Amino acid sequence: MIIRFAGTDYGLREARDAMIKKHVNIGMIGYKFMGKAHSHAYKDVQMFFQPALRPVMKVICGRTRAAVTAAAKQYGWESVETDWRILIQRPDIDIVDISSPGHLHRDQAIAAARAKKHVICEKPLANSLAEARGMLRAVKRAGVAHMVMFNYRRIPAVMLAHEMIRDGELGEIYHYRAFYLQDWIVDKRFPLVWRLEKKFAGSGALGDIGSHIIDLAHFLVGEIDEVCSHLKTFVKQRPLPGRKNKLGRVTVDDAAAFLARFRSGVVGSFEATRFATGRKNYHGFEIYGSKGALIFNFEAMNELHFYSCAEKKERQGFRRILVTEASHPYFNAWWPPGHIIGYEHTFVHAIAEFLNCLAAGRPPSPGFEDGVRCQAVLEAVEQSAHARRWVKVSRV
Amino acid sequence: MIIRFAGTDYGLREARDAMIKKHVNIGMIGYKFMGKAHSHAYKDVQMFFQPALRPVMKVICGRTRAAVTAAAKQYGWESVETDWRILIQRPDIDIVDISSPGHLHRDQAIAAARAKKHVICEKPLANSLAEARGMLRAVKRAGVAHMVMFNYRRIPAVMLAHEMIRDGELGEIYHYRAFYLQDWIVDKRFPLVWRLEKKFAGSGALGDIGSHIIDLAHFLVGEIDEVCSHLKTFVKQRPLPGRKNKLGRVTVDDAAAFLARFRSGVVGSFEATRFATGRKNYHGFEIYGSKGALIFNFEAMNELHFYSCAEKKERQGFRRILVTEASHPYFNAWWPPGHIIGYEHTFVHAIAEFLNCLAAGRPPSPGFEDGVRCQAVLEAVEQSAHARRWVKVSRV
Amino acid sequence: MIIRFAGTDYGLREARDAMIKKHVNIGMIGYKFMGKAHSHAYKDVQMFFQPALRPVMKVICGRTRAAVTAAAKQYGWESVETDWRILIQRPDIDIVDISSPGHLHRDQAIAAARAKKHVICEKPLANSLAEARGMLRAVKRAGVAHMVMFNYRRIPAVMLAHEMIRDGELGEIYHYRAFYLQDWIVDKRFPLVWRLEKKFAGSGALGDIGSHIIDLAHFLVGEIDEVCSHLKTFVKQRPLPGRKNKLGRVTVDDAAAFLARFRSGVVGSFEATRFATGRKNYHGFEIYGSKGALIFNFEAMNELHFYSCAEKKERQGFRRILVTEASHPYFNAWWPPGHIIGYEHTFVHAIAEFLNCLAAGRPPSPGFEDGVRCQAVLEAVEQSAHARRWVKVSRV
Amino acid sequence: MIIRFAGTDYGLREARDAMIKKHVNIGMIGYKFMGKAHSHAYKDVQMFFQPALRPVMKVICGRTRAAVTAAAKQYGWESVETDWRILIQRPDIDIVDISSPGHLHRDQAIAAARAKKHVICEKPLANSLAEARGMLRAVKRAGVAHMVMFNYRRIPAVMLAHEMIRDGELGEIYHYRAFYLQDWIVDKRFPLVWRLEKKFAGSGALGDIGSHIIDLAHFLVGEIDEVCSHLKTFVKQRPLPGRKNKLGRVTVDDAAAFLARFRSGVVGSFEATRFATGRKNYHGFEIYGSKGALIFNFEAMNELHFYSCAEKKERQGFRRILVTEASHPYFNAWWPPGHIIGYEHTFVHAIAEFLNCLAAGRPPSPGFEDGVRCQAVLEAVEQSAHARRWVKVSRV
Repeated sequence: MIIRFAGTDYGLREARDAMIKKHVNIGMIGYKFMGKAHSHAYKDVQMFFQPALRPVMKVICGRTRAAVTAAAKQYGWESVETDWRILIQRPDIDIVDISSPGHLHRDQAIAAARAKKHVICEKPLANSLAEARGMLRAVKRAGVAHMVMFNYRRIPAVMLAHEMIRDGELGEIYHYRAFYLQDWIVDKRFPLVWRLEKKFAGSGALGDIGSHIIDLAHFLVGEIDEVCSHLKTFVKQRPLPGRKNKLGRVTVDDAAAFLARFRSGVVGSFEATRFATGRKNYHGFEIYGSKGALIFNFEAMNELHFYSCAEKKERQGFRRILVTEASHPYFNAWWPPGHIIGYEHTFVHAIAEFLNCLAAGRPPSPGFEDGVRCQAVLEAVEQSAHARRWVKVSRV
Repeated sequence: MIIRFAGTDYGLREARDAMIKKHVNIGMIGYKFMGKAHSHAYKDVQMFFQPALRPVMKVICGRTRAAVTAAAKQYGWESVETDWRILIQRPDIDIVDISSPGHLHRDQAIAAARAKKHVICEKPLANSLAEARGMLRAVKRAGVAHMVMFNYRRIPAVMLAHEMIRDGELGEIYHYRAFYLQDWIVDKRFPLVWRLEKKFAGSGALGDIGSHIIDLAHFLVGEIDEVCSHLKTFVKQRPLPGRKNKLGRVTVDDAAAFLARFRSGVVGSFEATRFATGRKNYHGFEIYGSKGALIFNFEAMNELHFYSCAEKKERQGFRRILVTEASHPYFNAWWPPGHIIGYEHTFVHAIAEFLNCLAAGRPPSPGFEDGVRCQAVLEAVEQSAHARRWVKVSRV
Repeated sequence: MIIRFAGTDYGLREARDAMIKKHVNIGMIGYKFMGKAHSHAYKDVQMFFQPALRPVMKVICGRTRAAVTAAAKQYGWESVETDWRILIQRPDIDIVDISSPGHLHRDQAIAAARAKKHVICEKPLANSLAEARGMLRAVKRAGVAHMVMFNYRRIPAVMLAHEMIRDGELGEIYHYRAFYLQDWIVDKRFPLVWRLEKKFAGSGALGDIGSHIIDLAHFLVGEIDEVCSHLKTFVKQRPLPGRKNKLGRVTVDDAAAFLARFRSGVVGSFEATRFATGRKNYHGFEIYGSKGALIFNFEAMNELHFYSCAEKKERQGFRRILVTEASHPYFNAWWPPGHIIGYEHTFVHAIAEFLNCLAAGRPPSPGFEDGVRCQAVLEAVEQSAHARRWVKVSRV
Repeated sequence: MIIRFAGTDYGLREARDAMIKKHVNIGMIGYKFMGKAHSHAYKDVQMFFQPALRPVMKVICGRTRAAVTAAAKQYGWESVETDWRILIQRPDIDIVDISSPGHLHRDQAIAAARAKKHVICEKPLANSLAEARGMLRAVKRAGVAHMVMFNYRRIPAVMLAHEMIRDGELGEIYHYRAFYLQDWIVDKRFPLVWRLEKKFAGSGALGDIGSHIIDLAHFLVGEIDEVCSHLKTFVKQRPLPGRKNKLGRVTVDDAAAFLARFRSGVVGSFEATRFATGRKNYHGFEIYGSKGALIFNFEAMNELHFYSCAEKKERQGFRRILVTEASHPYFNAWWPPGHIIGYEHTFVHAIAEFLNCLAAGRPPSPGFEDGVRCQAVLEAVEQSAHARRWVKVSRV
């Protein structure tokens, strides 16, 4: 596969053969929540999108052979590895998909890039800005394609919002209000899983779900210039899994909130929490501009609420657009209007985009630059929380 | 007050004086739920609407002196009567407001008309079509102004819907779906009040709340041509009030439903029930036309949901118009946008309309013709329920 | 595969081998909208549900070789046929899936049953009650498993509603209000497709979408005893596809509405239309009982609204249950709470149910009896529309 | 009227007479938006609440005689004054109601207190914390009753929320999210009214509507300890009213946002803006606690959304409580369930509370202490916006 990408040629015999067959071989690291979501996307993308390159589910990697073997069988992977370094070196692999916890992203991505593999990486890109920058340098140097899995960009309603803002339908933007509210650890007896430990997860609600709302903000209204934040850990100790009556210290935030100023003058507010009782995956935004407004939340992900000042005053109102028309983003691949889609479809869209970009020699989006950009905000938020004042966001 | 009305002069010395002072004297029969709602309207109409004639709360009538005296004091009426025949004959009364149970409407309205009083009557106009026709004949013969209190027409959102349909914003209408769902007698222990007895109430859910949805249908999309119905009494016996362990027979319907065909070709469905657990005053409609649609329900009475085909397909959606702009019907009398109004405001609007029509010599709306029209449908519904087939609605 | 089913043995060598491998081979007729939906279900069911029998996408059938070959490639079928009779006779096929238009169902299902194939058939089961009964006789005689694809039963929220009603959480049921509103042919220029011709489709909105709301009513609150209906065709002529400026006659209903009485005493109303401007796939119900109520609509298919009288009055209200918990029906196969699913998932659930029943020797549900039951109501509705009176529903 | 209040006697002959008659005489300053709202409350409170003291609408004050005379006639005041100092000295006045712009509150309230009048003052209490403190000292020294018109406390749904939190139904509170979004000055041509000038209004969105969300937060979850904010003026120059083509400088904020930490450990976010296109009076909160959550917004002010963890997981969901039951706060004075109320009712409730407290010798709530408490937060927010860091809120 000789694909000219980001100004660089890269090519291996195997890849060339794949190109002839229009196939690319995927090697995926991780097999739990994200592993399942990504696997499904590879499985379904051909049926609904017929991307220019057809993905082959070649190998899946996990540390525990029995578990990863079961996953491979269930999801439909051809083979398994238990050492990600081996997977990355396999000559039959074109694309490495990193669905592992955050502390492993850096090494895996850099190794993959060095092995001339294209890289898809779960978000947040890394556990620190420095790590993320290193990863970006690696993929650029290697000239491989790269994408960070901010799958929420690929919701049809979010894509529509993006197009509407880009085309000026909202006029000058004034306010961006973002939220990502969950409640899965409200119960104090919920155990100290890896997502609650800084050494594995980097941060808590901030990195896990805050990263999504930061990325959508970048996607929709541009870059954040400065932030003022606070972080909060409501429950400071939790049961250690498998160790009866033993508590361990929670080393990440349960909730993060920050005010933001965008480079464009937009004023923003962001909240990410795992302590919003009753909210399951309440992830969304409100955007107010001089000509209109948009409201979205993921729990009703097929709807975009739009207020337009273009109509006469007596007819204005928030309008629930059911984003399921054939002419809406991605939807003609699916079902007739009103037949809604769900969470995993966002991954199918993202993978279709990646494969089509790869075939066309265009950089997939969002790339590692976007991952770095997000990481810079995450870092500024953490700094602000400690300094208790406004902090500038580092430039990419 | 010499007001030329419906082609007839009428005048009394007192009324003439009132005219000079721009005042009209009200005599009201009934002081419970509707008595309170109407009283409040007379009290507030001047402050918000400055109608051409200012109502004076002259006298209120009820059978129990102590109770009606207390009501008069609470609501602000100048005097009381315990015999409605005396009230009607009082020379200082210009307008008789009938807020009594249905079985009394006919005699009271006819007597008032004969005494040359203008008449406002609660809905349904009567307990039968024959009674209603007699009332209409009486007010026409007397040349007095008349209005039936279908207050829901006077909701700003409903008025807006009316204007939109009239102006063709919905195009050709296909479907009219009406519902009025309540739950106040779901509990089997609820007693046998007058509203559950045919001799007082005429019918049950059908006349009480079904009359409202029939009238709104007439108002919004025109006359009903034929109906096919059924009526249902879920709980057939109920405790007699004040008589321990004694049950009495429910002689009216708990629920009524009918299909309808309008003269215009519109297809309709109507449901009125007191057995829709969880619905308190869920009264509304859905209207679908070739160019758009409207949805309304009273529990969110400041909102009208509008779907317009005028926009491009990708931007279409049901739009929640918050009907609180100064340029919306009635609203400039009240508060700034977004400061919602409630149930009793509909009566203020109706009374303002009545007084302004009276001053201008225009027939108020909805008049007794509308009351008769509604009654004709109610009668057809009852006939259909017995005949178990479609029944034509009598012409007014 | 020797599966004892409905009291009958059946077995072929190929099937036995499949059993050993725990595989069953599918032959599907039809490859358009339903063909795509069913194909996807066979593709994904293993990954999410690991049914006791693993489906193999053996052969897909359509009249046009090029088109069906393209579909086979896109969806992942191993081979194609252009004559359904050949498909049905293929010894390697265990299950015949009928996703063709209604006028073909009878012959295909009967032929499949005679060939000892298990049968999955799209809804409505047939174009007449007589046809449907013939199909039921055939599958019973053959002792094969049968299912009619009323996929909406398999929505988690609908399954939850079913369980709640079954367990008495709503108490005695009073009202069942059903609706299925679409708008895809409001435009008069929409052509005369097969779904608008009686000879292919049997009926219009009635059979196509009315059948769904009838089936859900049966599933949720039991059998319908009698109906009173009307049918309406708003646009009587439409452009003939591919024949410029030529119009053809619409021979089916655009809209159907009926009142119903259930055997249990429940009172029902049903509306199915393709002329509800703004409604895309607005399919749902309201159910009111002595202890609570349920509201559902497909456009927000992950939500069930529940009103419970069990709480104290001041805390009662309609509650939006987001039916995405691991302990909700089917959801533990998918994603964490709040990560919603969509339309095609209902087919995955239905196929999983079918395969598990087949393996266990239990009759899948809904079976052809349910298809016949639905057809009996459809027939009664048509008769009532002509007779303009109430009509009893034939017993299965 | 000899009322022992806050430990002090006060009494005038006129007041004593009023006491005998159970009447109190009101003198009101201001006759525009708030003047109208307060007037209506005095007009209606007797009919619906029969407070222990009956208010008499004695005198209304405004600078322009013609305008205030017209207002007096429209609203039903007995007399007018054009100098508030005279009104305050009138011996027949018991209660001074200050509905004037913020820069006048201090002098008027202090003068009223010195004249031994009870004082009701519009919010925010003053234009600075120092002013507010002076006012509080004055009313305390005079021993008069005092109330600041935070009318939104008196919404039935808000009162219900208050009771539920107080009674522990939400458990430990984690998050308080407050918003007050409007859009009335999005249009750049909107003129430079007094509310956009610091010398009259003190601040912009912050004081005008931010004060409401601060007060509700205090009412519902207690005192705010520290804040971090920013203020934004999107449109810096606007047309001067009545001066063609002349622009003047906007000297207040268009939008204010701040993060907060409450003394109790609750984490808060607050946004107030006049630039949220499409939002008319979108004022509300989300409160998340260990046992449940509450959501409210004023545009649907009769609804409170409640999530309770007390039920089993599969039945949990946000429940829309229609706060219109007779057993809900204030509602038994109004209408049957489902017959909603509106904006002006909140003032009726507040006045009823004030009059009943006055009669009973209890301090009305919210008193000037609450006004000072709110002002302290407003001041901290302004300081933080300038200092660009967290700022402690002064203790009352």
